Amino acid sequence: MNAQAHRLARTPSGIVGFDEITGGGLPTGRCSLVCGAAGAGKTLFGLTFLAEGALRFGEPGVFISFEETEAELAANVASLGYDLEQLRAANQLAVDYVRVERAEIAETGDYDLDGLFLRIGHAIRTAGARRVVLDTPESLFSSFSNAAILRAELRRLFGWLKAQGVTSVITAESGGGELTRHGLEEYVSDCVILLDQRVLDQVATRRLRVVKYRGASHGGDEYPFLIDETGVSVLALASPQ
Amino acid sequence: MNAQAHRLARTPSGIVGFDEITGGGLPTGRCSLVCGAAGAGKTLFGLTFLAEGALRFGEPGVFISFEETEAELAANVASLGYDLEQLRAANQLAVDYVRVERAEIAETGDYDLDGLFLRIGHAIRTAGARRVVLDTPESLFSSFSNAAILRAELRRLFGWLKAQGVTSVITAESGGGELTRHGLEEYVSDCVILLDQRVLDQVATRRLRVVKYRGASHGGDEYPFLIDETGVSVLALASPQ
Amino acid sequence: MNAQAHRLARTPSGIVGFDEITGGGLPTGRCSLVCGAAGAGKTLFGLTFLAEGALRFGEPGVFISFEETEAELAANVASLGYDLEQLRAANQLAVDYVRVERAEIAETGDYDLDGLFLRIGHAIRTAGARRVVLDTPESLFSSFSNAAILRAELRRLFGWLKAQGVTSVITAESGGGELTRHGLEEYVSDCVILLDQRVLDQVATRRLRVVKYRGASHGGDEYPFLIDETGVSVLALASPQ
Amino acid sequence: MNAQAHRLARTPSGIVGFDEITGGGLPTGRCSLVCGAAGAGKTLFGLTFLAEGALRFGEPGVFISFEETEAELAANVASLGYDLEQLRAANQLAVDYVRVERAEIAETGDYDLDGLFLRIGHAIRTAGARRVVLDTPESLFSSFSNAAILRAELRRLFGWLKAQGVTSVITAESGGGELTRHGLEEYVSDCVILLDQRVLDQVATRRLRVVKYRGASHGGDEYPFLIDETGVSVLALASPQ
Amino acid sequence: MNAQAHRLARTPSGIVGFDEITGGGLPTGRCSLVCGAAGAGKTLFGLTFLAEGALRFGEPGVFISFEETEAELAANVASLGYDLEQLRAANQLAVDYVRVERAEIAETGDYDLDGLFLRIGHAIRTAGARRVVLDTPESLFSSFSNAAILRAELRRLFGWLKAQGVTSVITAESGGGELTRHGLEEYVSDCVILLDQRVLDQVATRRLRVVKYRGASHGGDEYPFLIDETGVSVLALASPQ
Amino acid sequence: MNAQAHRLARTPSGIVGFDEITGGGLPTGRCSLVCGAAGAGKTLFGLTFLAEGALRFGEPGVFISFEETEAELAANVASLGYDLEQLRAANQLAVDYVRVERAEIAETGDYDLDGLFLRIGHAIRTAGARRVVLDTPESLFSSFSNAAILRAELRRLFGWLKAQGVTSVITAESGGGELTRHGLEEYVSDCVILLDQRVLDQVATRRLRVVKYRGASHGGDEYPFLIDETGVSVLALASPQ
Ligand SMILES: Nc1ncnc2c1ncn2[C@@H]1O[C@H](COP(=O)(O)OP(=O)(O)O)[C@@H](O)[C@H]1O
Ligand SMILES: Nc1ncnc2c1ncn2[C@@H]1O[C@H](COP(=O)(O)OP(=O)(O)O)[C@@H](O)[C@H]1O
Ligand SMILES: Nc1ncnc2c1ncn2[C@@H]1O[C@H](COP(=O)(O)OP(=O)(O)O)[C@@H](O)[C@H]1O
Ligand SMILES: Nc1ncnc2c1ncn2[C@@H]1O[C@H](COP(=O)(O)OP(=O)(O)O)[C@@H](O)[C@H]1O
Ligand SMILES: Nc1ncnc2c1ncn2[C@@H]1O[C@H](COP(=O)(O)OP(=O)(O)O)[C@@H](O)[C@H]1O
Ligand SMILES: Nc1ncnc2c1ncn2[C@@H]1O[C@H](COP(=O)(O)OP(=O)(O)O)[C@@H](O)[C@H]1O
Ligand SMILES: [Mg+2]
Ligand SMILES: [Mg+2]
Ligand SMILES: [Mg+2]
Ligand SMILES: [Mg+2]
Ligand SMILES: [Mg+2]
Ligand SMILES: [Mg+2]
Repeated sequence: MNAQAHRLARTPSGIVGFDEITGGGLPTGRCSLVCGAAGAGKTLFGLTFLAEGALRFGEPGVFISFEETEAELAANVASLGYDLEQLRAANQLAVDYVRVERAEIAETGDYDLDGLFLRIGHAIRTAGARRVVLDTPESLFSSFSNAAILRAELRRLFGWLKAQGVTSVITAESGGGELTRHGLEEYVSDCVILLDQRVLDQVATRRLRVVKYRGASHGGDEYPFLIDETGVSVLALASPQ
Repeated sequence: MNAQAHRLARTPSGIVGFDEITGGGLPTGRCSLVCGAAGAGKTLFGLTFLAEGALRFGEPGVFISFEETEAELAANVASLGYDLEQLRAANQLAVDYVRVERAEIAETGDYDLDGLFLRIGHAIRTAGARRVVLDTPESLFSSFSNAAILRAELRRLFGWLKAQGVTSVITAESGGGELTRHGLEEYVSDCVILLDQRVLDQVATRRLRVVKYRGASHGGDEYPFLIDETGVSVLALASPQ
Repeated sequence: MNAQAHRLARTPSGIVGFDEITGGGLPTGRCSLVCGAAGAGKTLFGLTFLAEGALRFGEPGVFISFEETEAELAANVASLGYDLEQLRAANQLAVDYVRVERAEIAETGDYDLDGLFLRIGHAIRTAGARRVVLDTPESLFSSFSNAAILRAELRRLFGWLKAQGVTSVITAESGGGELTRHGLEEYVSDCVILLDQRVLDQVATRRLRVVKYRGASHGGDEYPFLIDETGVSVLALASPQ
Repeated sequence: MNAQAHRLARTPSGIVGFDEITGGGLPTGRCSLVCGAAGAGKTLFGLTFLAEGALRFGEPGVFISFEETEAELAANVASLGYDLEQLRAANQLAVDYVRVERAEIAETGDYDLDGLFLRIGHAIRTAGARRVVLDTPESLFSSFSNAAILRAELRRLFGWLKAQGVTSVITAESGGGELTRHGLEEYVSDCVILLDQRVLDQVATRRLRVVKYRGASHGGDEYPFLIDETGVSVLALASPQ
Repeated sequence: MNAQAHRLARTPSGIVGFDEITGGGLPTGRCSLVCGAAGAGKTLFGLTFLAEGALRFGEPGVFISFEETEAELAANVASLGYDLEQLRAANQLAVDYVRVERAEIAETGDYDLDGLFLRIGHAIRTAGARRVVLDTPESLFSSFSNAAILRAELRRLFGWLKAQGVTSVITAESGGGELTRHGLEEYVSDCVILLDQRVLDQVATRRLRVVKYRGASHGGDEYPFLIDETGVSVLALASPQ
Repeated sequence: MNAQAHRLARTPSGIVGFDEITGGGLPTGRCSLVCGAAGAGKTLFGLTFLAEGALRFGEPGVFISFEETEAELAANVASLGYDLEQLRAANQLAVDYVRVERAEIAETGDYDLDGLFLRIGHAIRTAGARRVVLDTPESLFSSFSNAAILRAELRRLFGWLKAQGVTSVITAESGGGELTRHGLEEYVSDCVILLDQRVLDQVATRRLRVVKYRGASHGGDEYPFLIDETGVSVLALASPQ
């Protein structure tokens, strides 16, 4: 066996520039964390990953949404040129909107991951999915007060996703200069991408940074990140390190 | 179906400059969050949205006030040239002052949203309202200690408002550099607008920024925000991105 | 009815410069919050408002003091040229020192507002007062741990004061860059004034800023604020916006 | 009665420069708070106030020490040229070291002020004291978790001291940019003095600032504060405002 | 006995540059702490220490992983040119993946160290290991709320490792400018190394700093830290102090 | 009695430069606090104080270690040229390693000081010690949640040490810009020394500052602090104030 044989497999995101700075895309069969504040572009990153996977790489995907309904998501990516309904009709994308109700939280103190696994597992099998996006499972985890338990559950979720053999993206809410709300997810993830929108002298700019990528060389600088009618893209000015 | 058909509908706010930087106004049938510190102009933004909706776009509105009585609101917008009483008489605006009493909080630990839904629903049907403003429902949420429950309830409120088919504005109190008090509302909202009043070298200036607008291209910079006898307006110096 | 008819009534504070930057003084019949750190001039602002009201505008006043006794207050404003005893003798000013005892807090968990209302109400009727100052009711509120209840109680106090038909000033303790200790009072108030004493290069200067004034145009900049033997005054360098 | 008659009486501290910037010293019959970090000079300020009071103004004093024993205090001021033992022998100074024991705290949850009053009262009567210093009663208050109760107790202590007809100095521990540990004492005090030791480019300098002085005009700037073998002094560069 | 005889033994890390700035490597038979944020290079530092130990210095090692499985680790270091499987086959490296389950935490309130000791002890004896790496035992400690107990347990873990006669590396998660999450580990450790990845003007750079090295002279500056296909290395620009 | 007679006795630390800036060393018979982050040099400061005391001033010492074993300490100071074993053999130094076990904490809620007093007392008597170092008794105090009790216990420890007639050094962990973890120890101590290691532009430098020295004039600036094979020293550039 030589090291080359071990070269970490990449799954192309289809996001212009991103696959360039990461030497090919997201780590295949692993969990990547996309962090950012409200409006940073996390949901669009995730949807683009799935839409491009379906359209260009023939990999069906599952989008587990905790915030937006399927109709809302469809409307929100339409401006980027994607037609979610068509993708779903072609069996290339499944969208599942998981609404975490107060009662579920109140009864058990915290959410039951196993029910979620059943639901995602079913969606994956139905779609024959190779890619999965969980758009802000924060809702599941915000009631944990014990950091050790939260960590164990995060690891269980990530482990389960890897066991399904899918390449997944999980979004996380950052704020106040920290990567994530709990400061734990980034340690458990294999790949961490930070989306950032900053205002300097009244002018706003978007940036993307690959904070961490286990097992791979990648550009670690901040790259301009663009969202416009042609979709989501990264200005990969520098070549990978 | 083509993407154009999916273009997100906009509801004009009637606020000079704002509709320009957002490509037409607030997202129709969705919930927009207007954040700002005390005196930032949140209430005037909301009232202008309703008054202009009634006067210029023929859309009746409902204003749910948690802080100011109807008489106070009338006095407060008079200086901007609006006559709330006349609007109400013409059945173009309904104002409902919801006073959250200590007893209600003390008994149940937190406020019952369902009662509020009945009340808003009735006001909407009576007025045939297309626009709804909730001026700082913070009062409802400040007693929640569990972030997961607060999130679930916020989502329930937002979901219910969308289900009524109205375009709504919800105000939120920001401070200390954060968008909102709990740091949750901005993630659940479809559109987030930040009003800011800053003092530099003893001189105060007001700014407006569209932090987030799901599904749409918009100007993301900080724009001068003005409140004077001609009303509320935005100086849209730059064209939308 | 025209908007002019609705122009918010102002009650002159009698503080040189302040009435100029606010277009006439404090909002009549409403509650204004005067915030500041220890020694900022909150008490002197409040006492000047009452003394000038009595001496120049024929409006008797009530001063509810939670920190200083009547004798202390008399001594403290003497250096500004006011004679509290004379004002009281002439029935133009009533001073009531409310001492919040530990026992009252310990027994009930928090202070009973109704007893306070009886006491202020009696003072208002006796003096035929048109102006009321509550000098740092913080003592009443510092034991509330539940933000929702604190808010409801603040709103009850403010509502009750408005119902008495008096123009009132409430002082609040600020610190650490925030307007108030709990960050709530400024949202409930109709008018918020910040007094600030800052040290730059070993030199101290005082500033006043009208942070918020519902329903009115006002200067929003920071103005030099002076306390000397001629009393309290504001250097209204700029004209109102 | 004219205002001049009301001019707040001052008690000279005997500290060179300090009496100049305060127009005569500390407020007679009231409580002054001297705040500062460890080593700022609070204890020396207090002891100088008492020693000078005894030696130059014929006013006996009582020093209630919560940190240092009488022997330690004597050794600590010897380098400034004061002889505490001689002062005590001449009945001009009484030092009482109050050791707050763990057991006292553990039993009652918080310290009993009444016992302290008995003790201080006895010391005052015995010495015929006109000046009292409490050197960091923080020990008494650090176990209070309820801000309202702490405030009520602080006010009780301050009120009791005033009722004794003595001029008192109370020291407080500041840190992290705040005046006091709880952020309450400065609001309850009649006069607040901040002692500060800062390091800039490896060089340390001491500063004194009168933050607040109810009822009096005073210099509010930061003045160089010196401790050397001639004692404690203030470089009153500027004249009082 | 002379001091030279006492010169602290060093265990070469095999990391280019690191052994130079530390005068020979990590302290033999002691515990070194490698701190850093997510993606800082902690795991690669640890694995390189073990791989080089096995390949160049003939010292077998044990890697206790709390985050990554053996297969993942193998894939992650392949890009640096190491072949974990071969090392394991040659009995030069044992990898043990310890998964801390929620149930274990929930039952006992905190993790039982003794079980871990048995497990590590067995791995050490089997491999005849001279080097041990614990990759983020944070999972074990994050449920401790009592700082004193956490400290006692940390000291027990460190003491036990020393008693095994192995040279160990423990990784720790830093963030927010602090070395470690609890701010305790660095005090208990014999040697503390900080890995840092900072972004300045959109460009990312990695740095290594030896914060502490009990008993030894070492370079204390920040040195460029590199991760590339040739492995992990330090640019030891300056000579040791 | 004259003041000169009272001049505070000093105990020379034997640390080059330190005795110069403090006018002779540490206060005899009192407790000095040496604060600093991990690796600041606290332990070496304490050990040098004892070793020099024994070797040059004929004063035996006791080192109570809460972190390092005697063998570790011996190894750690060997590089500075000290031979702890020889000192112990000559009965000039006693080292006692106090291991605070989890069980002791768990059972009683907090550590029992009396047992420690017995132990230290015995070591002092056996060695005829004049100097005592407690190297980070933080372990004892980190479980106290009540600040008042912690303070009382600290004062008890300090009082007991003084009652033994020894000159003592107590180390404390600082971090985050504060002198000590609890922000209490510096107020209770007679002398406070801050050791600091800062990194500026990638270059590390060590500084020492005497923050407080009750009863004595001393240099208060920051002085370069060096640790090398000749031992610990201070670059006393400026003369004492
Ligand atoms: N067609 C478009 N052109 C430009 N920007 C767009 C377009 N559609 C959406 N956006 C931007 O994308 C943002 C929403 O991205 P989203 O992925 O929902 O953020 P997040 O999930 O991080 O909150 C909007 O706030 C808007 O600024
Ligand atoms: N006619 C006016 N001209 C100028 N400014 C006004 C006028 N009326 C109100 N304002 C400004 O608007 C502010 C109040 O806005 P409001 O919407 O009530 O703030 P918020 O709801 O964010 O607390 C006032 O503080 C005042 O500065
Ligand atoms: N005659 C005077 N001349 C100048 N300044 C004065 C005079 N009287 C009081 N002051 C200033 O006013 C301050 C007290 O104001 P006060 O209203 O009591 O403050 P607050 O209530 O905000 O704590 C004092 O600290 C002092 O600086
Ligand atoms: N004779 C002296 N000359 C110069 N400085 C002295 C002298 N005596 C004491 N000091 C300084 O005074 C400080 C102690 O002041 P102290 O009043 O005890 O402070 P605090 O009570 O605020 O902690 C010492 O840290 C020292 O710097
Ligand atoms: N072959 C490689 N070339 C360059 N960088 C690499 C390579 N392999 C890994 N890295 C870098 O190493 C980082 C992971 O290091 P790791 O030790 O897992 O970090 P930590 O354990 O501190 O989270 C990745 O984020 C990546 O930036
Ligand atoms: N011989 C030496 N030469 C130079 N520096 C040394 C030497 N021995 C120890 N050090 C330094 O001293 C530091 C340890 O000091 P120590 O007193 O143990 O710190 P602390 O007790 O504050 O954690 C080490 O991190 C190292 O930088
Ligand atoms: Mg999203
Ligand atoms: Mg409002
Ligand atoms: Mg006041
Ligand atoms: Mg003191
Ligand atoms: Mg790792
Ligand atoms: Mg140490």
